[in-house]
Amino acid sequence: MQYMHRALRLAKQAYRQDEVPVGAILVKDHHVISQTHNRCVIDNNPLYHAEMLAIYQGISQLQTLYLNECTLYVTLEPCPMCAAAIAQARVGKLIFGAYDHKSGGVEHGPKIFSHAHHTPEIIGGVLEDECASLLRNFFKKKR
Amino acid sequence: MQYMHRALRLAKQAYRQDEVPVGAILVKDHHVISQTHNRCVIDNNPLYHAEMLAIYQGISQLQTLYLNECTLYVTLEPCPMCAAAIAQARVGKLIFGAYDHKSGGVEHGPKIFSHAHHTPEIIGGVLEDECASLLRNFFKKKR
Repeated sequence: MQYMHRALRLAKQAYRQDEVPVGAILVKDHHVISQTHNRCVIDNNPLYHAEMLAIYQGISQLQTLYLNECTLYVTLEPCPMCAAAIAQARVGKLIFGAYDHKSGGVEHGPKIFSHAHHTPEIIGGVLEDECASLLRNFFKKKR
Repeated sequence: MQYMHRALRLAKQAYRQDEVPVGAILVKDHHVISQTHNRCVIDNNPLYHAEMLAIYQGISQLQTLYLNECTLYVTLEPCPMCAAAIAQARVGKLIFGAYDHKSGGVEHGPKIFSHAHHTPEIIGGVLEDECASLLRNFFKKKR
Protein backbone atom coordinates (compact mmCIF):
# COMPACT_ATOMS: atom_id res chain seq x y z
CA MET A 1 0.00 0.00 0.00
CA GLN A 2 2.86 2.39 0.78
CA TYR A 3 3.68 2.86 -2.92
CA MET A 4 0.08 3.58 -3.84
CA HIS A 5 -0.03 6.14 -1.01
CA ARG A 6 3.05 7.71 -2.54
CA ALA A 7 1.48 7.66 -6.02
CA LEU A 8 -1.55 9.34 -4.50
CA ARG A 9 0.64 12.09 -3.07
CA LEU A 10 2.01 12.66 -6.58
CA ALA A 11 -1.54 12.79 -7.91
CA LYS A 12 -2.27 15.50 -5.33
CA GLN A 13 0.77 17.45 -6.54
CA ALA A 14 -0.69 17.24 -10.05
CA TYR A 15 -4.04 18.47 -8.72
CA ARG A 16 -2.42 21.55 -7.21
CA GLN A 17 -0.86 22.30 -10.61
CA ASP A 18 -4.27 22.06 -12.28
CA GLU A 19 -3.28 18.83 -13.95
CA VAL A 20 -5.55 15.76 -14.09
CA PRO A 21 -4.58 14.16 -10.75
CA VAL A 22 -2.95 10.86 -11.67
CA GLY A 23 0.33 9.77 -10.10
CA ALA A 24 2.60 6.85 -10.92
CA ILE A 25 5.54 5.11 -9.28
CA LEU A 26 7.83 2.55 -10.82
CA VAL A 27 9.43 0.18 -8.33
CA LYS A 28 12.13 -2.46 -8.67
CA ASP A 29 13.39 -4.59 -5.77
CA HIS A 30 11.80 -2.18 -3.28
CA HIS A 31 13.57 0.78 -4.86
CA VAL A 32 11.61 3.62 -6.41
CA ILE A 33 12.95 4.02 -9.93
CA SER A 34 10.71 6.83 -11.08
CA GLN A 35 7.87 8.88 -9.64
CA THR A 36 5.75 11.02 -11.87
CA HIS A 37 2.35 12.58 -12.41
CA ASN A 38 0.41 13.73 -15.44
CA ARG A 39 2.10 16.65 -17.17
CA CYS A 40 -0.14 17.16 -20.22
CA VAL A 41 -1.02 20.74 -19.33
CA ILE A 42 2.31 21.75 -17.76
CA ASP A 43 4.33 20.40 -20.70
CA ASN A 44 1.69 21.03 -23.36
CA ASN A 45 1.77 17.42 -24.49
CA PRO A 46 -1.34 15.21 -24.58
CA LEU A 47 0.82 12.06 -24.40
CA TYR A 48 2.49 12.96 -21.11
CA HIS A 49 0.41 10.72 -18.91
CA ALA A 50 1.96 9.68 -15.60
CA GLU A 51 2.53 6.10 -16.80
CA MET A 52 4.32 7.13 -20.01
CA LEU A 53 6.66 9.38 -18.06
CA ALA A 54 7.28 6.71 -15.43
CA ILE A 55 8.20 4.23 -18.16
CA TYR A 56 10.45 6.69 -20.00
CA GLN A 57 12.26 7.60 -16.79
CA GLY A 58 12.48 3.97 -15.73
CA ILE A 59 14.09 2.90 -19.00
CA SER A 60 16.59 5.73 -18.91
CA GLN A 61 17.29 5.18 -15.20
CA LEU A 62 17.84 1.43 -15.44
CA GLN A 63 19.48 1.60 -18.86
CA THR A 64 17.40 -1.39 -19.84
CA LEU A 65 15.11 -2.02 -22.79
CA TYR A 66 12.40 -3.80 -20.81
CA LEU A 67 10.90 -3.46 -17.37
CA ASN A 68 9.98 -7.08 -16.60
CA GLU A 69 11.27 -6.81 -13.07
CA CYS A 70 9.41 -3.62 -12.26
CA THR A 71 6.03 -2.90 -10.75
CA LEU A 72 4.11 0.15 -11.91
CA TYR A 73 1.74 1.74 -9.38
CA VAL A 74 -0.71 4.21 -10.84
CA THR A 75 -3.70 5.88 -9.23
CA LEU A 76 -6.02 5.39 -12.23
CA GLU A 77 -6.63 2.50 -14.62
CA PRO A 78 -4.31 3.18 -17.56
CA CYS A 79 -5.85 4.43 -20.82
CA PRO A 80 -5.34 2.34 -24.01
CA MET A 81 -2.16 4.23 -24.96
CA CYS A 82 -0.56 3.70 -21.55
CA ALA A 83 -1.74 0.09 -21.28
CA ALA A 84 -0.22 -0.63 -24.70
CA ALA A 85 3.00 1.15 -23.66
CA ILE A 86 3.08 -1.03 -20.52
CA ALA A 87 2.85 -4.09 -22.78
CA GLN A 88 5.46 -2.66 -25.14
CA ALA A 89 7.92 -2.02 -22.30
CA ARG A 90 7.04 -5.42 -20.77
CA VAL A 91 6.33 -4.05 -17.31
CA GLY A 92 6.19 -7.02 -14.93
CA LYS A 93 3.35 -5.95 -12.66
CA LEU A 94 0.66 -3.27 -12.85
CA ILE A 95 -1.17 -2.08 -9.75
CA PHE A 96 -3.77 0.62 -10.20
CA GLY A 97 -6.20 2.55 -8.00
CA ALA A 98 -9.48 3.82 -9.45
CA TYR A 99 -11.21 2.11 -12.35
CA ASP A 100 -11.80 4.30 -15.40
CA HIS A 101 -15.15 3.26 -16.84
CA LYS A 102 -15.05 5.93 -19.53
CA SER A 103 -11.48 5.95 -20.81
CA GLY A 104 -9.72 2.94 -19.28
CA GLY A 105 -7.94 0.47 -21.51
CA VAL A 106 -7.26 -2.41 -19.12
CA GLU A 107 -10.66 -3.54 -17.85
CA HIS A 108 -12.60 -1.27 -20.21
CA GLY A 109 -12.71 -0.16 -23.84
CA PRO A 110 -10.26 -2.06 -26.04
CA LYS A 111 -8.98 -4.17 -23.09
CA ILE A 112 -5.45 -3.93 -24.39
CA PHE A 113 -4.05 -6.97 -22.62
CA SER A 114 -6.53 -9.31 -24.31
CA HIS A 115 -4.55 -8.64 -27.51
CA ALA A 116 -1.04 -7.80 -26.30
CA HIS A 117 2.07 -9.95 -26.70
CA HIS A 118 2.97 -9.20 -23.10
CA THR A 119 0.58 -9.01 -20.16
CA PRO A 120 1.72 -7.90 -16.71
CA GLU A 121 0.35 -9.30 -13.50
CA ILE A 122 -2.55 -6.91 -12.76
CA ILE A 123 -4.18 -5.77 -9.53
CA GLY A 124 -6.86 -3.06 -9.76
CA GLY A 125 -8.83 -1.18 -7.13
CA VAL A 126 -6.01 -0.50 -4.63
CA LEU A 127 -6.94 2.59 -2.54
CA GLU A 128 -9.73 2.92 -5.06
CA ASP A 129 -11.88 5.33 -3.04
CA GLU A 130 -9.09 7.83 -2.34
CA CYS A 131 -7.84 7.73 -5.93
CA ALA A 132 -11.33 8.08 -7.39
CA SER A 133 -12.49 10.84 -5.08
CA LEU A 134 -9.44 12.99 -5.90
CA LEU A 135 -10.31 12.71 -9.60
CA ARG A 136 -14.01 13.34 -8.93
CA ASN A 137 -13.19 16.52 -6.97
CA PHE A 138 -10.89 17.73 -9.73
CA PHE A 139 -13.49 17.36 -12.47
CA LYS A 140 -16.22 18.83 -10.24
CA LYS A 141 -14.06 21.92 -9.73
CA LYS A 142 -13.45 22.12 -13.49
CA ARG A 143 -17.13 22.18 -14.46
CA MET B 1 1.79 9.50 -52.77
CA GLN B 2 4.88 11.73 -52.48
CA TYR B 3 4.71 11.79 -48.69
CA MET B 4 4.42 8.02 -48.44
CA HIS B 5 7.43 7.74 -50.75
CA ARG B 6 9.26 10.01 -48.37
CA ALA B 7 8.15 7.95 -45.36
CA LEU B 8 9.40 4.88 -47.19
CA ARG B 9 12.81 6.51 -47.65
CA LEU B 10 12.91 7.09 -43.88
CA ALA B 11 11.97 3.44 -43.33
CA LYS B 12 14.94 2.49 -45.52
CA GLN B 13 17.20 4.68 -43.38
CA ALA B 14 15.95 2.76 -40.34
CA TYR B 15 16.66 -0.53 -42.15
CA ARG B 16 20.27 0.48 -42.72
CA GLN B 17 20.59 1.21 -39.00
CA ASP B 18 19.29 -2.26 -38.16
CA GLU B 19 16.06 -0.77 -36.87
CA VAL B 20 12.60 -2.15 -37.73
CA PRO B 21 12.00 -0.27 -41.01
CA VAL B 22 9.03 1.97 -40.33
CA GLY B 23 9.03 5.63 -41.33
CA ALA B 24 6.57 8.42 -40.54
CA ILE B 25 5.92 11.93 -41.78
CA LEU B 26 3.64 14.51 -40.23
CA VAL B 27 2.26 17.05 -42.69
CA LYS B 28 0.26 20.24 -42.20
CA ASP B 29 -0.88 22.45 -45.08
CA HIS B 30 1.58 20.75 -47.43
CA HIS B 31 4.45 21.40 -45.05
CA VAL B 32 6.40 18.57 -43.50
CA ILE B 33 6.34 19.16 -39.75
CA SER B 34 8.29 16.11 -38.67
CA GLN B 35 9.93 13.12 -40.31
CA THR B 36 11.03 10.18 -38.26
CA HIS B 37 11.66 6.48 -38.20
CA ASN B 38 11.68 3.81 -35.51
CA ARG B 39 14.47 4.40 -33.00
CA CYS B 40 13.81 1.62 -30.46
CA VAL B 41 17.22 0.01 -30.90
CA ILE B 42 19.24 3.18 -31.53
CA ASP B 43 17.78 4.95 -28.50
CA ASN B 44 17.25 1.83 -26.40
CA ASN B 45 13.58 2.65 -25.89
CA PRO B 46 10.76 0.24 -26.83
CA LEU B 47 8.29 3.14 -27.06
CA TYR B 48 10.21 5.04 -29.73
CA HIS B 49 8.08 4.00 -32.66
CA ALA B 50 8.13 6.29 -35.70
CA GLU B 51 4.60 7.55 -35.02
CA MET B 52 5.29 8.45 -31.38
CA LEU B 53 8.35 10.44 -32.37
CA ALA B 54 6.50 12.15 -35.23
CA ILE B 55 3.76 13.19 -32.81
CA TYR B 56 6.19 14.43 -30.14
CA GLN B 57 8.15 16.45 -32.69
CA GLY B 58 4.95 17.75 -34.28
CA ILE B 59 3.59 19.00 -30.97
CA SER B 60 6.84 20.68 -30.05
CA GLN B 61 7.27 22.11 -33.56
CA LEU B 62 3.76 23.54 -33.84
CA GLN B 63 3.54 24.49 -30.15
CA THR B 64 0.03 23.11 -30.17
CA LEU B 65 -1.68 20.61 -27.91
CA TYR B 66 -3.55 18.82 -30.69
CA LEU B 67 -2.81 17.86 -34.27
CA ASN B 68 -6.28 18.04 -35.82
CA GLU B 69 -5.01 19.80 -38.89
CA CYS B 70 -2.20 17.33 -39.53
CA THR B 71 -1.93 14.19 -41.60
CA LEU B 72 0.31 11.39 -40.37
CA TYR B 73 1.83 9.16 -43.06
CA VAL B 74 3.35 5.94 -41.75
CA THR B 75 4.64 2.94 -43.68
CA LEU B 76 3.02 0.37 -41.35
CA GLU B 77 -0.35 0.11 -39.67
CA PRO B 78 0.16 1.64 -36.21
CA CYS B 79 0.32 -0.68 -33.20
CA PRO B 80 -2.22 -0.19 -30.37
CA MET B 81 0.06 2.21 -28.46
CA CYS B 82 0.63 4.43 -31.49
CA ALA B 83 -3.01 4.26 -32.60
CA ALA B 84 -4.10 5.33 -29.13
CA ALA B 85 -1.48 8.12 -29.14
CA ILE B 86 -2.87 9.28 -32.50
CA ALA B 87 -6.32 9.45 -30.89
CA GLN B 88 -4.89 11.18 -27.81
CA ALA B 89 -3.13 13.84 -29.92
CA ARG B 90 -6.23 14.13 -32.14
CA VAL B 91 -4.34 13.68 -35.40
CA GLY B 92 -6.70 14.70 -38.21
CA LYS B 93 -5.84 12.10 -40.82
CA LEU B 94 -3.89 8.82 -40.78
CA ILE B 95 -2.50 7.30 -43.96
CA PHE B 96 -0.60 4.04 -43.62
CA GLY B 97 1.18 1.62 -45.95
CA ALA B 98 1.36 -2.07 -45.04
CA TYR B 99 -1.26 -3.78 -42.88
CA ASP B 100 0.04 -5.42 -39.72
CA HIS B 101 -1.97 -8.59 -39.22
CA LYS B 102 0.03 -9.62 -36.17
CA SER B 103 0.55 -6.42 -34.17
CA GLY B 104 -1.61 -3.74 -35.78
CA GLY B 105 -4.04 -1.77 -33.64
CA VAL B 106 -6.14 0.00 -36.27
CA GLU B 107 -7.70 -2.74 -38.42
CA HIS B 108 -6.45 -5.55 -36.18
CA GLY B 109 -6.18 -6.56 -32.52
CA PRO B 110 -7.92 -4.11 -30.20
CA LYS B 111 -9.03 -1.86 -33.12
CA ILE B 112 -8.31 1.22 -31.08
CA PHE B 113 -10.54 3.64 -32.99
CA SER B 114 -13.67 1.58 -32.27
CA HIS B 115 -13.27 2.76 -28.68
CA ALA B 116 -11.46 6.10 -28.95
CA HIS B 117 -12.91 9.55 -28.25
CA HIS B 118 -11.22 10.83 -31.40
CA THR B 119 -10.93 8.99 -34.70
CA PRO B 120 -8.89 10.36 -37.59
CA GLU B 121 -9.87 9.94 -41.21
CA ILE B 122 -8.03 6.70 -42.14
CA ILE B 123 -6.62 5.40 -45.43
CA GLY B 124 -4.67 2.12 -45.32
CA GLY B 125 -2.74 0.20 -47.97
CA VAL B 126 -0.96 3.15 -49.66
CA LEU B 127 2.22 1.81 -51.35
CA GLU B 128 1.37 -1.35 -49.47
CA ASP B 129 3.64 -3.69 -51.48
CA GLU B 130 6.77 -1.56 -51.15
CA CYS B 131 6.19 -0.93 -47.43
CA ALA B 132 5.46 -4.59 -46.72
CA SER B 133 8.34 -6.02 -48.73
CA LEU B 134 10.85 -3.79 -46.93
CA LEU B 135 9.62 -5.17 -43.60
CA ARG B 136 9.57 -8.75 -44.93
CA ASN B 137 13.18 -8.45 -46.10
CA PHE B 138 14.25 -7.03 -42.78
CA PHE B 139 12.75 -9.87 -40.76
CA LYS B 140 14.03 -12.49 -43.22
CA LYS B 141 17.54 -11.10 -42.76
CA LYS B 142 17.08 -11.21 -38.97
CA ARG B 143 16.13 -14.92 -38.84
